[in-house]
Amino acid sequence: MYIRRFSIPDAEYLRREIKEELARIEDDQDLHLYYSLMEFRHNLMLEYLEPLESQRIEEQPRLSDLLADIDKKQARLTGRLDYYFNFFRGMYELECREYLTAIQFFKKAESKLFFVKDRIEKAEFYFKMSESYYYMKQTYFSMDYARQAYEIYNQHTTYNIRVLQCHSLFATNFLDLKQYDEAIQHFKKAYAMAEAEQQPQLMGRTLYNIGLCFNSQGNYKPAIDYIKRAIAVFEDGKIIPSLPQAYFLITQIHYKLGNMDLARQYHNKGVSYAEEAEDSLYIMEYEFLESLYVNEPDEEAISKCFDFLKAKMMYADLEDFALDVAKYYHERENFEKASAYFLKVEETRQQIQGGVKLYEIEV
Amino acid sequence: MYIRRFSIPDAEYLRREIKEELARIEDDQDLHLYYSLMEFRHNLMLEYLEPLESQRIEEQPRLSDLLADIDKKQARLTGRLDYYFNFFRGMYELECREYLTAIQFFKKAESKLFFVKDRIEKAEFYFKMSESYYYMKQTYFSMDYARQAYEIYNQHTTYNIRVLQCHSLFATNFLDLKQYDEAIQHFKKAYAMAEAEQQPQLMGRTLYNIGLCFNSQGNYKPAIDYIKRAIAVFEDGKIIPSLPQAYFLITQIHYKLGNMDLARQYHNKGVSYAEEAEDSLYIMEYEFLESLYVNEPDEEAISKCFDFLKAKMMYADLEDFALDVAKYYHERENFEKASAYFLKVEETRQQIQGGVKLYEIEV
Repeated sequence: MYIRRFSIPDAEYLRREIKEELARIEDDQDLHLYYSLMEFRHNLMLEYLEPLESQRIEEQPRLSDLLADIDKKQARLTGRLDYYFNFFRGMYELECREYLTAIQFFKKAESKLFFVKDRIEKAEFYFKMSESYYYMKQTYFSMDYARQAYEIYNQHTTYNIRVLQCHSLFATNFLDLKQYDEAIQHFKKAYAMAEAEQQPQLMGRTLYNIGLCFNSQGNYKPAIDYIKRAIAVFEDGKIIPSLPQAYFLITQIHYKLGNMDLARQYHNKGVSYAEEAEDSLYIMEYEFLESLYVNEPDEEAISKCFDFLKAKMMYADLEDFALDVAKYYHERENFEKASAYFLKVEETRQQIQGGVKLYEIEV
Repeated sequence: MYIRRFSIPDAEYLRREIKEELARIEDDQDLHLYYSLMEFRHNLMLEYLEPLESQRIEEQPRLSDLLADIDKKQARLTGRLDYYFNFFRGMYELECREYLTAIQFFKKAESKLFFVKDRIEKAEFYFKMSESYYYMKQTYFSMDYARQAYEIYNQHTTYNIRVLQCHSLFATNFLDLKQYDEAIQHFKKAYAMAEAEQQPQLMGRTLYNIGLCFNSQGNYKPAIDYIKRAIAVFEDGKIIPSLPQAYFLITQIHYKLGNMDLARQYHNKGVSYAEEAEDSLYIMEYEFLESLYVNEPDEEAISKCFDFLKAKMMYADLEDFALDVAKYYHERENFEKASAYFLKVEETRQQIQGGVKLYEIEV
């Protein structure tokens, strides 16, 4: 209940209370199992799906222990418990990147969704499916589940945040389809709702994402405008961890446009935010900008940055950066180097398996 | 029944017989509707899904007429008919490239699959879903449905062809994921079954696809071996329409390796097969090879070929060819031209929306 209303302290408090109650009830095995599953849900639901790259499966022994426990008892599960079992198992397999197994469990869960009478609970399932399939790049399925979640949430004003997130899911999927206009349209709806709900984090993120769409289209003027608005919101709300990324994009655009002084200003601020947030990835990515655009390109430093991204399996970033270097040299008519970096882009592309890129934009 | 056993003449004969019977029964509307749906199925099931590019929706008025008719009567449909209605409607939407709508109807159909008691009929549904989602690039879903179809077909020796096709579906999906070794493994299983069933068309196609995988890995020696075997099977079986493609790939590989005389021999034979099969696409693609590799590159002719592919919206071929030209110039240290063609590759990539490439390898 509290989980669904996004009241984290309340949900935490309630969970502790239930745990204490359970300590006194020793006999009812089903109840204990139900509690285990609810606890699992508590952990899964509260968090956003984080970029897969940043998840360390080995650091999550609790999930697999719990699963072993649940596996044993599964025979007794029926109806609703069956739904939860399959749903959570699917989420676990997704984290392990066992996508084919994940789909099987998700489909089993969906076939038991009939036992879940609460409409909002159903919507939560559809929403998580949309998120999951977005990460698996099963674009049309992700959009179909976002639609189903949207249709339910949209009937309840208390779920405005979820409606907003559905718009963001439509938008990010459209972005994957390179249908930028549709993506922008949905991000704008999401932004209007975030503003109405006075959610600075979501406002800033949506503004940034609109900027990203315009940037992908090569429309730099509106891209800059939206990123500046995103920065203003993040700085106003002191949301430091989101600032290195926003500053990075606007810095990059200004370097590409040859606005060196402006770029330098954004660059300096971006680096200091990255250091404040201890964001080692962006510290390295700013070094890439430094190596490419400030003075003459420093290919040794560029190559160091590429190695860093390779080690982190961030092939999508690597591909984008190699393309930037290639285009830089092409414009300056240093075609030998341009051609060499274009080849690097092709090689990197071969590394990206299954369209499952290992970093994502945040929904 | 005959449809499912792949006996096309029998299926055709039976359909005519039923049609004559129906002419005498005027009253039973459900029966007529059922017949309409079966006729629809007859048409859909017998054919492979053809490459989307080659389908002309405007040439298929019968489908939409029939749909309008079925739409009106849908209220009376229940259970099994409901399943058929949603399944066929999904297939229709797929042909119209309305992917989000197609998914909705397919999911409705699946929820009614309970009413279909025949296991093979269920397998046919899973098989068509796997094919459909392969074309929509929903890779993991396609593989999951291929698995479900496979598990049923594999229990019946009379469905060896479908088991073989399931292996091909696994393989082509693995190819999309750039997991070449897994793809080759499944194609090899498919080949062994095609050989056991003495199906030259399928044997040749599978051999060609194995060659394609090796080619994608840059393993030209085994690629050449497999394509030569494919050619032998196609020529032996006088399967002319498949020959221009197989000759094209082996010609291209030999040009890339600098084996000019060998390339020239394959080139000439390939062109004559393309002319015999009146295959205008391959006639143009052989002209591309001529323009690039024979004598000095003829950029005007290359650009004519690119325009042809663009007009046909064959962006994937266009991208591959532009990349070939770029690499050709890069190797010959003409970096200015190399760089220009690499840029063209990037531009073309922006045209490919949603990963839905408009040509596909045949399953």
